[in-house]
Amino acid sequence: MLYITRKEHFSSSHKIHNPKLKDIENEKIFGKCNNFHGHNYYIEVTVCGKIDKRSGYVMDIKILKDIIQKEIIEKVDHKYLNDVEMFSGKIITTENMAMVFWEILKKKINLKGVKLYSIKIFETEKNIVLYKGE
Amino acid sequence: MLYITRKEHFSSSHKIHNPKLKDIENEKIFGKCNNFHGHNYYIEVTVCGKIDKRSGYVMDIKILKDIIQKEIIEKVDHKYLNDVEMFSGKIITTENMAMVFWEILKKKINLKGVKLYSIKIFETEKNIVLYKGE
Amino acid sequence: MLYITRKEHFSSSHKIHNPKLKDIENEKIFGKCNNFHGHNYYIEVTVCGKIDKRSGYVMDIKILKDIIQKEIIEKVDHKYLNDVEMFSGKIITTENMAMVFWEILKKKINLKGVKLYSIKIFETEKNIVLYKGE
Amino acid sequence: MLYITRKEHFSSSHKIHNPKLKDIENEKIFGKCNNFHGHNYYIEVTVCGKIDKRSGYVMDIKILKDIIQKEIIEKVDHKYLNDVEMFSGKIITTENMAMVFWEILKKKINLKGVKLYSIKIFETEKNIVLYKGE
Amino acid sequence: MLYITRKEHFSSSHKIHNPKLKDIENEKIFGKCNNFHGHNYYIEVTVCGKIDKRSGYVMDIKILKDIIQKEIIEKVDHKYLNDVEMFSGKIITTENMAMVFWEILKKKINLKGVKLYSIKIFETEKNIVLYKGE
Amino acid sequence: MLYITRKEHFSSSHKIHNPKLKDIENEKIFGKCNNFHGHNYYIEVTVCGKIDKRSGYVMDIKILKDIIQKEIIEKVDHKYLNDVEMFSGKIITTENMAMVFWEILKKKINLKGVKLYSIKIFETEKNIVLYKGE
Repeated sequence: MLYITRKEHFSSSHKIHNPKLKDIENEKIFGKCNNFHGHNYYIEVTVCGKIDKRSGYVMDIKILKDIIQKEIIEKVDHKYLNDVEMFSGKIITTENMAMVFWEILKKKINLKGVKLYSIKIFETEKNIVLYKGE
Repeated sequence: MLYITRKEHFSSSHKIHNPKLKDIENEKIFGKCNNFHGHNYYIEVTVCGKIDKRSGYVMDIKILKDIIQKEIIEKVDHKYLNDVEMFSGKIITTENMAMVFWEILKKKINLKGVKLYSIKIFETEKNIVLYKGE
Repeated sequence: MLYITRKEHFSSSHKIHNPKLKDIENEKIFGKCNNFHGHNYYIEVTVCGKIDKRSGYVMDIKILKDIIQKEIIEKVDHKYLNDVEMFSGKIITTENMAMVFWEILKKKINLKGVKLYSIKIFETEKNIVLYKGE
Repeated sequence: MLYITRKEHFSSSHKIHNPKLKDIENEKIFGKCNNFHGHNYYIEVTVCGKIDKRSGYVMDIKILKDIIQKEIIEKVDHKYLNDVEMFSGKIITTENMAMVFWEILKKKINLKGVKLYSIKIFETEKNIVLYKGE
Repeated sequence: MLYITRKEHFSSSHKIHNPKLKDIENEKIFGKCNNFHGHNYYIEVTVCGKIDKRSGYVMDIKILKDIIQKEIIEKVDHKYLNDVEMFSGKIITTENMAMVFWEILKKKINLKGVKLYSIKIFETEKNIVLYKGE
Repeated sequence: MLYITRKEHFSSSHKIHNPKLKDIENEKIFGKCNNFHGHNYYIEVTVCGKIDKRSGYVMDIKILKDIIQKEIIEKVDHKYLNDVEMFSGKIITTENMAMVFWEILKKKINLKGVKLYSIKIFETEKNIVLYKGE
């Protein structure tokens, strides 16, 4: 069993805001994150599986890159995340982003003979979220 | 003569848009940058001067840090840059940001016996703008 | 279950030395690390827990940052670690530092509805220690 | 139990190619990786064990560094990997490299009172393979 | 006047070898660099110019990226540099690569109302070459 | 004319202190930097010169590395800088370190047919000093 990781990048804006709460409560909980701001996000997608004898690969990392690009990056890069359909009804925290990406990628990657193992999102180089689907 | 650099960080959102142009022209010129999006910006402020015999410093870098924090970071971090007063009437490109920061910092730093030498902004790790006031 | 990581930084000096051994033995075991020297340490503190429905956070990362700053960084940054109280009686290796930080942070973090999961210390970018309290 | 990681670096060239397949099949499976190209590889070797009371170390990281240098770096740095003996008969993917390094390092490290825990290879900063010997 | 930098990446193999010298002399001058090996190269292309009032840009960095991709990256990425036409008759040192890239990019970039200012190549993160066309 | 840069690393401790001043004045000027602390320093040495036709190099970067290792790194790595002879009588600021390194390296490098161009020291990734001998 080996673990293969591909790192990709996107730049987006968001506002951390719970639509079920009043403005004053949102300000209290989220502080300056309740303002409209943005990040250069880095995402690391890890899959695991066995080596294929013919190719010596667990998975052609170019295919993994293409899945991440098509399913995630094209939909979130240079976008206002609060308007992106996959996050509809969610508070746009990095935690919720990781869980949404997991559901999307799981369906595409688990078909390829490997399994999605984890999703790591770097909101900044100091703030990092990891989700393993548990 | 020595050159002292302090690096700081902020996260903001913006939209690259020229208010004097029609929407269709903005889309043509700015493409996906005309959407609301955001970045983790890194800014490097470089000053130059001679060593002070008493302290062995050109400038106490803590003072340089405090000036950048007070004059720039507090005003742009976790903000929507198109609404920030210092950029009023400007297209919010990294080039214009560098020139606006230069005018602000020059007034504060040139008083301290050193001279502002350059401002470098990393919009992403691949896109970088440098301004030396020339 | 999600894993949230906050990265912080401090600069300290130390000397790796076992007070129970003779000088010649310390030199033999620790080599040049037995000299006074120092590092820019990076520490990554990871907590785990479930998403809070109201905030969309596992834990407000600002609170995690404040705990690390108050309990660790303020006590070790720009200090000589062999004189810092929390390391009293210990050989100041990165391994022991990780275990001391674990005991301190565990008491503060486990109260917040999340659990401390791991502490990773980068002594340099090439030498890294990880502790999970096991 | 603590986990100690040492990071090392080497620059090599290779060609991803399965000698059991025809050229046209190799081109189809490996695309431009079937060309002769190269990388600056980073390798992270992690060992685990308990703290030794006398030294405060799990393992003197200098010894770990010397083992990695002698057993791996000296044999692969500035070499054409398809000609290096340890890869004889293998397709030179990062996955196979990780498994070959594991077999070599396991024999040298497990003697030292610690256990080899994982080998991580960064082919580029975006493509990463992890192997834990499972 | 502002300076705009775009960073790109490629992975290639080469052998540092002067065809006019005997093998024994090549070995003496180039040591292990005379072996086939490879690198993940990073290239930083800097242009300079004035801000265009309509766009707020010195140059649309997407155009700069496309020029570097088309003229350089597509021709050298995942290639054996000693066989690449642009280096024909040259010793493939990073110095010569910088000068060859300069001649190619100068013709494409100086047409766009900006001037090529410098080319910086990171052979590894420790070995860097800068050329300004002087 | 090309510019060649080699990056090296050392870990040292120091205390910023002017022996000509009283303790209370040192505390006032240097704050927590007057405590015994340390850093992982990175140093970038840049030389400039023309390409040698026979080797295609400005300077064999291995020779540059060896000079920096022998003249600087061996003397400061894992040392208490206030006790290192080259800094005798100096306040150990990064500025003074850059000037001391300049005098040492200039004598060794200018003999090799190239000229020392600049010395850049990263005290931390946020605090950087550059000296060009002017």
